[in-house]
Amino acid sequence: MEENIFHLQYALDTFYFVICGALVFWMAAGFAMLEAGLVRSKNTTEILAKNVGLFAISCTMYLVCGYAIMYGGNIFVSGIQEVDVAATLGEFAERGDFTGDSIYSGASDFFFQVMFAATAMSIVSGAVAERMKLWPFLAFAAIMAGVIYPMEGAWTWNGDDVFGLFNLGELGFSDFAGSGIVHLAGASAALAGVLLLGARKGKYGPNGQINAITGANLPLATLGTFILWMGWFGFNGGSVLKLGDVGSANSVAMVFLNTNAAAAGGLATAMIVARLLFGKADLTMTLNGALAGLVAITAEPSTPTAFQALLIGSCGGALVIFAILGLDKLKIDDPVGAISVHGVVGIFGLLVVPLTNSDATFVGQIVGGLTIFVWVFGASLIIWSILKAVFGIRVSEEEEFEGSDIAECGMEAYPEFTNK
Amino acid sequence: MEENIFHLQYALDTFYFVICGALVFWMAAGFAMLEAGLVRSKNTTEILAKNVGLFAISCTMYLVCGYAIMYGGNIFVSGIQEVDVAATLGEFAERGDFTGDSIYSGASDFFFQVMFAATAMSIVSGAVAERMKLWPFLAFAAIMAGVIYPMEGAWTWNGDDVFGLFNLGELGFSDFAGSGIVHLAGASAALAGVLLLGARKGKYGPNGQINAITGANLPLATLGTFILWMGWFGFNGGSVLKLGDVGSANSVAMVFLNTNAAAAGGLATAMIVARLLFGKADLTMTLNGALAGLVAITAEPSTPTAFQALLIGSCGGALVIFAILGLDKLKIDDPVGAISVHGVVGIFGLLVVPLTNSDATFVGQIVGGLTIFVWVFGASLIIWSILKAVFGIRVSEEEEFEGSDIAECGMEAYPEFTNK
Amino acid sequence: MEENIFHLQYALDTFYFVICGALVFWMAAGFAMLEAGLVRSKNTTEILAKNVGLFAISCTMYLVCGYAIMYGGNIFVSGIQEVDVAATLGEFAERGDFTGDSIYSGASDFFFQVMFAATAMSIVSGAVAERMKLWPFLAFAAIMAGVIYPMEGAWTWNGDDVFGLFNLGELGFSDFAGSGIVHLAGASAALAGVLLLGARKGKYGPNGQINAITGANLPLATLGTFILWMGWFGFNGGSVLKLGDVGSANSVAMVFLNTNAAAAGGLATAMIVARLLFGKADLTMTLNGALAGLVAITAEPSTPTAFQALLIGSCGGALVIFAILGLDKLKIDDPVGAISVHGVVGIFGLLVVPLTNSDATFVGQIVGGLTIFVWVFGASLIIWSILKAVFGIRVSEEEEFEGSDIAECGMEAYPEFTNK
Repeated sequence: MEENIFHLQYALDTFYFVICGALVFWMAAGFAMLEAGLVRSKNTTEILAKNVGLFAISCTMYLVCGYAIMYGGNIFVSGIQEVDVAATLGEFAERGDFTGDSIYSGASDFFFQVMFAATAMSIVSGAVAERMKLWPFLAFAAIMAGVIYPMEGAWTWNGDDVFGLFNLGELGFSDFAGSGIVHLAGASAALAGVLLLGARKGKYGPNGQINAITGANLPLATLGTFILWMGWFGFNGGSVLKLGDVGSANSVAMVFLNTNAAAAGGLATAMIVARLLFGKADLTMTLNGALAGLVAITAEPSTPTAFQALLIGSCGGALVIFAILGLDKLKIDDPVGAISVHGVVGIFGLLVVPLTNSDATFVGQIVGGLTIFVWVFGASLIIWSILKAVFGIRVSEEEEFEGSDIAECGMEAYPEFTNK
Repeated sequence: MEENIFHLQYALDTFYFVICGALVFWMAAGFAMLEAGLVRSKNTTEILAKNVGLFAISCTMYLVCGYAIMYGGNIFVSGIQEVDVAATLGEFAERGDFTGDSIYSGASDFFFQVMFAATAMSIVSGAVAERMKLWPFLAFAAIMAGVIYPMEGAWTWNGDDVFGLFNLGELGFSDFAGSGIVHLAGASAALAGVLLLGARKGKYGPNGQINAITGANLPLATLGTFILWMGWFGFNGGSVLKLGDVGSANSVAMVFLNTNAAAAGGLATAMIVARLLFGKADLTMTLNGALAGLVAITAEPSTPTAFQALLIGSCGGALVIFAILGLDKLKIDDPVGAISVHGVVGIFGLLVVPLTNSDATFVGQIVGGLTIFVWVFGASLIIWSILKAVFGIRVSEEEEFEGSDIAECGMEAYPEFTNK
Repeated sequence: MEENIFHLQYALDTFYFVICGALVFWMAAGFAMLEAGLVRSKNTTEILAKNVGLFAISCTMYLVCGYAIMYGGNIFVSGIQEVDVAATLGEFAERGDFTGDSIYSGASDFFFQVMFAATAMSIVSGAVAERMKLWPFLAFAAIMAGVIYPMEGAWTWNGDDVFGLFNLGELGFSDFAGSGIVHLAGASAALAGVLLLGARKGKYGPNGQINAITGANLPLATLGTFILWMGWFGFNGGSVLKLGDVGSANSVAMVFLNTNAAAAGGLATAMIVARLLFGKADLTMTLNGALAGLVAITAEPSTPTAFQALLIGSCGGALVIFAILGLDKLKIDDPVGAISVHGVVGIFGLLVVPLTNSDATFVGQIVGGLTIFVWVFGASLIIWSILKAVFGIRVSEEEEFEGSDIAECGMEAYPEFTNK
């Protein structure tokens, strides 16, 4: 009987993990559609190639070494794991309930975690769009998913000391599903790339004008946002790491509820703020508001009440608009607003955790956020600089003018449509 | 041991609910893509803004007051619910099995229910597309999801008396997943809006001509239909409300099977009827046929055999074509056919329930359908009228000619594509 | 107590099946988007109509007779199945654990299986795109899903003898999720159609030139690939057929992991090979590489280690490029590369099974692959020939020039966009 219950428990938690992982996989499609919708048609094939390429390379590198760096073990050469049911039942009998450590397939854990590595890298592609070369970008993806992300992921989620110097968990750093570890990390790598790359030609005029460069396909961008929103249920919901007891199940359900409430709050607030600022219901700002709401709640989606989640998301939705406007003032050119959505709002998400979760401290959140930023930004700056020196990271002026689709991929995304 | 089983039961049913809720969430993306594909390019950004905006506002209002009106309780200020496992186990021991009341997280119930409120409102946006102002529409969404829908939802799904006058359940009204409560309700609200709004310029000629206005992007409309179809598995499947015993699991599986069969029947029948009527395989009619099949089976997807489900869906698929043609004769302009799909076929779905479910009566179904229609249509007419009087609900003639994208959102959906 | 555990076990395995089935459903949307993105705009409405039509017809025919041919039983007239819990518990008590036969709702099994029949047929539509008539194609779909596919499916997955002559299982044929039974079968039917149909006008020049005909909408093709990738988790993961014990759950998780690894390997390898061959990161080849990786692993996703899965997928990704180039040399015109992806790589997938699964033999794999090919290709050739003789299967030259959208469906897919 105990054995049968154990089997069910194990199967349920494993199923929960692979389904949440599949939802996070779906976010890769969301980033691809969002970015393809927000760039110009002449750069669309290339941004799609970057998105599918970075996903494949991130998965491969996380398999080869990233997971081992982050959590130990070598999934690369593993087949189906053997579980000693009798021995586990022995421990289980001592413990007497299901509320202890998670028990599920190691493969399901990898499947869930690998999608996070790919997500961190997906954030980068949007910020460097329309001017970065394809292959150096993919080389960076290999290092980001294989080393840079796993290093900082290990500090919090595996409890490792930061370079043997200090321990973020002991300082009260808490990042439930990765506002910092995934989103701020992705934005930090993106910022380093953008600073080395410079703005797109024509984005900033000689007299300080900021020229809007509108995306070619807004339905695609909207679809991408919906996909990301859906995938985020798995991203945050799976981060409870366990489903199979009343407490965990309640937590999972609350996380789904709060994730949705924060996204809704972010969307509605951004729509209203954009209307007040610009006089129009700016759709791209509105979509970024939803994503900002999602990023904001990601650091702690389980402890807030629904009202608090709505409020946290709303603040994220307002903040992202000012962040986008501010970065443009600084001439930091981010075609899709990724640095604002994932970086600025990621920091905000970290900072509000202590308001609802007493295990987190403001000092811990600040030190944690800074540690992630310094490490990822610094390491990325070095890698981007090497790539720039060795291969160059920016397409030629002529290629930028003609569009990177022909230059990099040899084909247009919409060969019959554009009204040249 | 009992306790461990209880934990598993609770976790499984909660997981089932949040996954079904995530699938229903996905329907919001489906409506957005369907409608964006069926309007003209000059109104695409605006319909996308309406779809994302109504979703965010519906979720917010259902959180603030809708759920409390419909089911009681105040989820707004709730954090993770506490479950007294020992006490529940006491009741459970008396009962001795799993086949009684549902036991799952309250947050998962809210997460599932909120998606229904948003779905009801998503139906409206398509019918009033290409001519209604954005902000009055969103104001209506707030009242629809916050009050109008929860009121009528409470009558059936919470068993409340209709204004203290009569009880629909006692009259034999049965609406499993909401052909009436969600779909007819959405269509009734839409009809009220359309009547006050009038037809699009150029839709009906001076001599009674009906001019076809073709959608700008049929792949998008097809994608939207597929998304809705997939989401409907959660919509109907989740409406079993419980998974964790043999009877419920069989019911869930049968609902998935029948939902798919009805959609397939509706699609194939509409394709053939369109071919017979128009000489061509009309894709938009075919897509509406699939949706009609889905609406038709929604009132009772668990009791029909597969053959009956196929038949019910097929009737829906044929009916929707005649409904669309009929509404056009009445000069009721519904750009995406939402009133026909969700309203006319929603009524049909209610009426066939007694054929396979002996708990339902024809009288009950008629009274129930009428009650929903009268309440939602009446209340909506009042709200739309107030909005019309105070703000106006229709864009100006010039804005309608230029397209509401520039007027309302300040940006085109496909700035590089349209061959003006 | 045993009864309660049995209820949970049954519910969990049923839920697993319907969720995996819903994911495989999603593949229908993936094929539709992939094909709509890879054809020219003038044939887009028609390919969408084919995709939705074939899905509806396949589901209907598999319900009417396909499932009965493949597995016996008559789901068509079944309502919710009754399960004798007490009797099953008796067997269960004798067995004493959960690791025996699968126990789940028959409706969930049908729901999962019907999606496979539709998938096999979805493969066909891409290969015959841009020149085959709509209605004969749909007639073929009825026979494919109703008879041809169920016949060969029964041989392996139901253990039937091949026409009473020999038994594939006894020969050591193993096809876990259907590299042969679904993918090679679809490609074989497609090949027969393509041979009778001939190439598109202008594809092959008089002096042996091969002219590239580029797809109209690459974001759509990319979206389709992501959708297929996601759906494949259900396709392969559900083919474990059971979740509810430690061994099965480990297998399910490993299948998810390996499916993703193979797709990633196929994508990355195809991108690199295309760069080496053509000097550009060819996006359509890259997408086909991902699909090839998925097809390659489908014959056995549970026994390889992650490294082996990555390698198998990579080989598939390289192979598909040479297959596409080779078929073009043979003037076999396949607009989306379906015969290469699903046929050539499907055979490859079958052949590598014995390397990681000792239950399979090379002889068995060759005999099994040949049996599937001979039966499906032969039967399809007969059906296509009859359709050709009676109705004609190719659109007229004028219709092909003008595009089949107007001819078959009476509407353009993008009426406002194309720059004619």
